[in-house]
Amino acid sequence: MRISELAARTGVPLATLKFYLREGLLPHGLAVAATRAEYDESHVQRVAVIRALTETAGLPLQRVGEVLRLIDDPGPDLFATLGRAVGQLPPPIAELPADADAETAYPRARAVLEQLGQVWDPHYAAVAQLERALEAAEAAGLPMTPERARSYGAAIRAIAEFDVGAIPTDSSGAVGYAVLGTALYEPVIAAMRRLAHQDVAARRLGIEPAHGPETSQAG
Amino acid sequence: MRISELAARTGVPLATLKFYLREGLLPHGLAVAATRAEYDESHVQRVAVIRALTETAGLPLQRVGEVLRLIDDPGPDLFATLGRAVGQLPPPIAELPADADAETAYPRARAVLEQLGQVWDPHYAAVAQLERALEAAEAAGLPMTPERARSYGAAIRAIAEFDVGAIPTDSSGAVGYAVLGTALYEPVIAAMRRLAHQDVAARRLGIEPAHGPETSQAG
Repeated sequence: MRISELAARTGVPLATLKFYLREGLLPHGLAVAATRAEYDESHVQRVAVIRALTETAGLPLQRVGEVLRLIDDPGPDLFATLGRAVGQLPPPIAELPADADAETAYPRARAVLEQLGQVWDPHYAAVAQLERALEAAEAAGLPMTPERARSYGAAIRAIAEFDVGAIPTDSSGAVGYAVLGTALYEPVIAAMRRLAHQDVAARRLGIEPAHGPETSQAG
Repeated sequence: MRISELAARTGVPLATLKFYLREGLLPHGLAVAATRAEYDESHVQRVAVIRALTETAGLPLQRVGEVLRLIDDPGPDLFATLGRAVGQLPPPIAELPADADAETAYPRARAVLEQLGQVWDPHYAAVAQLERALEAAEAAGLPMTPERARSYGAAIRAIAEFDVGAIPTDSSGAVGYAVLGTALYEPVIAAMRRLAHQDVAARRLGIEPAHGPETSQAG
């Protein structure tokens, strides 16, 4: 297809597609004439990935480029590449000062991970993200407790087992899937949790749901 | 304490506290002299709530005011008030056009909720949020599947049961706790999921974790 058709197919303006081409995010189409390049389904898919990373995941373009490079060339150490690719996702975290001790810099995150018996590596971006999130909850008067960590940990592990089991086995597909699956399903999980709160609260309070299933109306 | 001490205690600049006072977000202190008002722990707590809502949850000040009004005056229908308060949280959702049919406007969210046997009310803000999140995942080539909905649904329900069980029983405390607990633990859950991915992947790939617990080194 022509680039104008790619714009129509993806709903992305032509000027934006040309910008992606200039920035090296989108590979050039196959030149079929001096002034015409041919685009295919791989370009449609790549545009969808760029849109998901920028618009839904909120990644700056520079980081999108880094993720795409890791997708295109995952290298031999898939585990490290997955970590680096997911580490590009927001929220951005501040680098530890050079004189900081990584072992002691994230006490709240470490306590949770040690309680759950999980891998503890202070160089994982998500460790710093967890520490910041736990600090904020604590500052607002809702500190993490061992009971909450236990409940959340078991539930989140079940989600993670499903996620990892769904990752394709080829390493290039794995990186893209892992990054998108991480980023795109965070808002899904957040919305599902809010809806589960309402469902659990309605049942505990004995409220007749407006559009509940038969079973809830009977219960 | 004087307002300058309140600033020191909370780490919030004096000018910001005065802004909160002017906007009606923070109650005035008790006037103990013509030019001096006395602040107490309730003010410290209120400032922490405002900071959590603005900085961590990313709420615009106008919506913070609405949440605080619901915390201060939850009214007789606690369930409706909880829904309205949590509905102020990001992401903002577009109002349905007047001629749209709410029953059919959220097909992806409805399918998930009906599969899970949960309350389905198209007027819950989180229904629209779930629909947008599911649309974005689908557009990027990772549509929700019944298998994922089942795995996620059971895990998220366990989290929600814990959350609702932890809510204080007085209605004023309940509203503040529910809003903060919803907003502040979303980034905690997202970070814990990323870390669980790494733990599950490391174990499946047989990678020795850098700082894993004894059990994982033996396994």
